[in-house]
Amino acid sequence: MAWSTSNCSVGRTLDVVGEKWSFQVLREVFLGIRRFEDMHVHAGIPRQVLSKRLASLVEAGLLERVPYRDQGARERHEYRLTEAGSELRTAMVALIAWGDKHLADPAGPALLPVHRGCGEPVELVARCAGGHPTGGPTDLGFAPGPGALPSGLT
Amino acid sequence: MAWSTSNCSVGRTLDVVGEKWSFQVLREVFLGIRRFEDMHVHAGIPRQVLSKRLASLVEAGLLERVPYRDQGARERHEYRLTEAGSELRTAMVALIAWGDKHLADPAGPALLPVHRGCGEPVELVARCAGGHPTGGPTDLGFAPGPGALPSGLT
Repeated sequence: MAWSTSNCSVGRTLDVVGEKWSFQVLREVFLGIRRFEDMHVHAGIPRQVLSKRLASLVEAGLLERVPYRDQGARERHEYRLTEAGSELRTAMVALIAWGDKHLADPAGPALLPVHRGCGEPVELVARCAGGHPTGGPTDLGFAPGPGALPSGLT
Repeated sequence: MAWSTSNCSVGRTLDVVGEKWSFQVLREVFLGIRRFEDMHVHAGIPRQVLSKRLASLVEAGLLERVPYRDQGARERHEYRLTEAGSELRTAMVALIAWGDKHLADPAGPALLPVHRGCGEPVELVARCAGGHPTGGPTDLGFAPGPGALPSGLT
């Protein structure tokens, strides 16, 4: 193969979210859980891990740290999704769908991807630019794009 | 929130693929690159990392190690996708799409998701079980499923 994948953006994406807890922290914020203590209790994420993950998600531009103050309490911070963070919902749905199929809990899924407008379940389907119907995930392939680099293979 | 995400399958999924190089190894196999040396050269994955990742992807049931013998050479092994491994294509497309939008290389994407039947580009869209049209990723939400556990939050 005369082209290389060494600059494929999936590597960069995983630099940002490819740590076991990153998607779990994002999931909490997707659910509207924005405060440190609530994430700790709700998701069972250890404090030290949570603190590190939140800092790296803010640094990566996926979350914003926003001050708030409960009546009579000192100022604290909560975490809100940036647009880039919110757009990871698609990958989150894909990872959940795969996990629920292949690593299912006997009790069934803990979380269901839903359409925010109506609350009904959603699933991801592939839309082919050629207008052809597509089947399941095995219909998806990959081809070199404009940024592909030369490789050592022929 | 009276239910917990502590048993959400995204955690289990990331136990399997949430290591920076795992998706990069899978990507090579999605591209039809199945041999150790070819992956090393094509993707620039360091040998030691590649060796560990292949072993853990086989152990997780995503790849199979299959013997082959080139004429006159000793028996070697190549790696083929299991059905579970192949079904990670959807998550791979979602991660690539996000990375190409938010962490783009100036030269453009290295890899384009395509419909395997025809080679045209594909994109993931959400299909709502209620039959409503869906917009972008921010239309995706999450609700507790049958396996959700009680939480310490109310």
